[in-house]
Amino acid sequence: MQIISQVFQEISPADFFYRNKEIAGFSNPARAIFSAIRELIENSLDATEPFGILPDIYIRLSSTGETEEEGFYTLRVEDNGSGIPSEYIPLAFCQFLFSSKYKLKQTRGTFGLGGTMTILYGQITTNKPVEVLSSTGDSKIYGYRLMIDIERNQPIILEKKVYENDGQWHGTIVEVNLEGDYSKAKPKVIEYLKQTAIANPYANIMFVDPKGRLYKFERTVSVLPPQPKETLPHPHGVDVETIYRIIRVTKCKTLLDFMQEHFHRVGRQIAKSFLEFAGFPEDTDPKRLKPEEIVKLVQAMKSFNGFLPPDASCLSPLGEEILKAGIMKELEPEFAAVTQRKPSAYSGHPFIVEVGVAYGGKVPVRSDNDITLYRFANKIPLVYDESGDVSWKVIKSIDWRRYNVEPGMPIAIIVHICSTKIPWKTVGKEMIADRPEISREILNGVREVARKLKVYLSRKEKVKREKERLSVFLRYLPKIAEFSAKLAREEKVPDIKNLLRRVRRFGEG
Amino acid sequence: MQIISQVFQEISPADFFYRNKEIAGFSNPARAIFSAIRELIENSLDATEPFGILPDIYIRLSSTGETEEEGFYTLRVEDNGSGIPSEYIPLAFCQFLFSSKYKLKQTRGTFGLGGTMTILYGQITTNKPVEVLSSTGDSKIYGYRLMIDIERNQPIILEKKVYENDGQWHGTIVEVNLEGDYSKAKPKVIEYLKQTAIANPYANIMFVDPKGRLYKFERTVSVLPPQPKETLPHPHGVDVETIYRIIRVTKCKTLLDFMQEHFHRVGRQIAKSFLEFAGFPEDTDPKRLKPEEIVKLVQAMKSFNGFLPPDASCLSPLGEEILKAGIMKELEPEFAAVTQRKPSAYSGHPFIVEVGVAYGGKVPVRSDNDITLYRFANKIPLVYDESGDVSWKVIKSIDWRRYNVEPGMPIAIIVHICSTKIPWKTVGKEMIADRPEISREILNGVREVARKLKVYLSRKEKVKREKERLSVFLRYLPKIAEFSAKLAREEKVPDIKNLLRRVRRFGEG
Repeated sequence: MQIISQVFQEISPADFFYRNKEIAGFSNPARAIFSAIRELIENSLDATEPFGILPDIYIRLSSTGETEEEGFYTLRVEDNGSGIPSEYIPLAFCQFLFSSKYKLKQTRGTFGLGGTMTILYGQITTNKPVEVLSSTGDSKIYGYRLMIDIERNQPIILEKKVYENDGQWHGTIVEVNLEGDYSKAKPKVIEYLKQTAIANPYANIMFVDPKGRLYKFERTVSVLPPQPKETLPHPHGVDVETIYRIIRVTKCKTLLDFMQEHFHRVGRQIAKSFLEFAGFPEDTDPKRLKPEEIVKLVQAMKSFNGFLPPDASCLSPLGEEILKAGIMKELEPEFAAVTQRKPSAYSGHPFIVEVGVAYGGKVPVRSDNDITLYRFANKIPLVYDESGDVSWKVIKSIDWRRYNVEPGMPIAIIVHICSTKIPWKTVGKEMIADRPEISREILNGVREVARKLKVYLSRKEKVKREKERLSVFLRYLPKIAEFSAKLAREEKVPDIKNLLRRVRRFGEG
Repeated sequence: MQIISQVFQEISPADFFYRNKEIAGFSNPARAIFSAIRELIENSLDATEPFGILPDIYIRLSSTGETEEEGFYTLRVEDNGSGIPSEYIPLAFCQFLFSSKYKLKQTRGTFGLGGTMTILYGQITTNKPVEVLSSTGDSKIYGYRLMIDIERNQPIILEKKVYENDGQWHGTIVEVNLEGDYSKAKPKVIEYLKQTAIANPYANIMFVDPKGRLYKFERTVSVLPPQPKETLPHPHGVDVETIYRIIRVTKCKTLLDFMQEHFHRVGRQIAKSFLEFAGFPEDTDPKRLKPEEIVKLVQAMKSFNGFLPPDASCLSPLGEEILKAGIMKELEPEFAAVTQRKPSAYSGHPFIVEVGVAYGGKVPVRSDNDITLYRFANKIPLVYDESGDVSWKVIKSIDWRRYNVEPGMPIAIIVHICSTKIPWKTVGKEMIADRPEISREILNGVREVARKLKVYLSRKEKVKREKERLSVFLRYLPKIAEFSAKLAREEKVPDIKNLLRRVRRFGEG
């Protein structure tokens, strides 16, 4: 029996993401506008902060349709970042899987897709090229007009211009045309900008919307947090492929050197005791390891308990002060508490969880009476798909009555996770996967601030009850005193001040 | 000011998915075992049903570690499918973005990644090749031992063998070694198999687990449902890139022919009135359209109301009978109702929603007292990440008290969505995005079955109340009668049978 055969086809990475725009956050016109703005801002932040530059980012969205309802826009994003060397500009913007983000380092972007997805989306909806202007601060500014050859995953250079750079300007300007629905996206865009300002208080962010309204988020801190550093892979997170890749490029002649040279926090002593544990002679030539020996090495790396935990100094958390300042500024709560958990790791990737709680003030009450959750990952706010996120799962798992929290109270929980590798569920970076190591840290962090909230709420409740009690005494004691005096036929009503003082003191005891 | 420049890097599609395994469902050892089994089964179903073959699928997972806890397994999946032509075997299994699934057609797989991801994951955890044996039913069976060159995204052929095929066997056998955690994955794997059997009752599925336990899901229907067909793109879902691609290959000399030839359900009359609406002369040569004219054409396609809706005859829904049979078989409920919604479309992609409700019997009660939800998409069960799915959102949005549903009742809702393009949120295919057209259909479907449930529950409640009322009458009426008789000093207690009958009749009225 011969069966009609299937049709096989090879597609380019650009074609894959073109066919599956949804998984990268470009699922409909509203979401596309949001994602485009977000991806370009995150590229700008990644082009400034890690290079020691205080970010100045200017975003302008202008309507280009004949009516605003037509849904065509020009999006322009300018930054004062490191700039992109001329030869890389076409590839960095118009080739999928070409990026500066494939490093073991805490960055906002990780898939290296956002900018290119934005340009692709603009192209397939408006058929217009992207314009890029960039300088690394040398004597030239380069300007390009580019499109993407989607089937071949290649940039098409329509125009290239070179300008003199007198003022030694450095930065990048991107202008893209796209279809979208800003009026629907607006609440999420503004929420995103606001929360970005909370987590990045050292950035100046200006946004001009299609109606010409200016949203200005001014720098409130002029010192950058410690910069994240690139790290070596931790032995616990290594697989066979990683070992092969390192063996291919290593100059080490012995496993003893190999372990120290290529892995995170492995010194001579640890390397020695690990190799003994794994059963490899110290002078084994890594290039001569057999396939099954490599598996054995990897397994030993995973199970050896003597490695130091990943060093979190490569990470750049917000810090309790910035986190609290952000909460106070944005939510103006009656009560707030924050905590930074100790560094932890999952499969060799270090991470730090920071948690805050806010009560009262401008903290909103949700229509479903649940607790309001603000989520951040590597300093970017996540404003979509809350219910699929690990933090939401943790919050829902808690019995809040134990912390004196009643449904409908104005309570917000803020969770920030930073890591060299955030375990994203989607390319659109909206949900963090439920890794047990991470959810445990979130849970402990939330419990910690919830206990502080409980103390505050108990005290508040007590004060309230005490006030009620006192008001009862205040109302009746004088009458009782008067009545008692009359009963006893005494002319002088007893002094109840002393009595009230004692009642009050008793209530405080 | 010259700034340290970034390091740019190009990575292959294989490398991209290697670095981002989580987004394809391989986030940890338990999930990896689940995803591997699932992806290979879905490939087998896609290699049988669409070719008119009743699926026979045999899955065997064997432990290969020295102890079961060590977490190394061999996974073998055999099917009687169409087989893969020899020359395509290495690419189909070991090259990313090479697949037979990039068609406008309802299939279980859509990203064309699952099998290759499974092999990649096996390779990076065990360093062992995959073994594939396949025949399309001709005189030969081909056997391969393959690995993936991840950095180059190419298959490495370690061995190729050719066997005689006497019995004209067709099908594919895949055997892959991988690390995993079956004991943790087991509940989800069994749940997945059970639900797969519900939605594919024409399949024989046998699974032997590492302890040698046999799970057998036997065919209960021996007729295949109507096969899904490949379709042309619908004008409402077209973008600029699609038009360019069609123009590049078209033989049509006029837009009038072009519209009829390349788009779904566009006949001569519709093509004529569309071109008039869009302002293009009928004899315009499509190959001579200018870039801005192509945008104009696409915009007109989106806004023209005269196109016929997408034809759902290309889809292969379960049908109300199979859906109900599956529910009755698996849940044995006291009450069940199903409905198939009329075909609908989002951005030119046709889809059909089928909804069922089950009450009582073996329907479980969730520990959180919520309603149990079973989700299916293109006949595959979705068992992870419920809370991020559109169906869950719809169910939570409903005020169930209006349907006499109380928390903690044993109620299950079953939702099946089939489409030529399921709007997946993730490459791991666990969550469906919230497209308004789709959530509306789900909502209406759920309401429809919920109304039937309401009628059933009301009747049940009424019967219960009636019984209680009658039992009260039955208890007191004789005494009242006796007492009244005594009061009236009558000797004969009146006959109350008549009275009770009237009370009963009143209750029924």
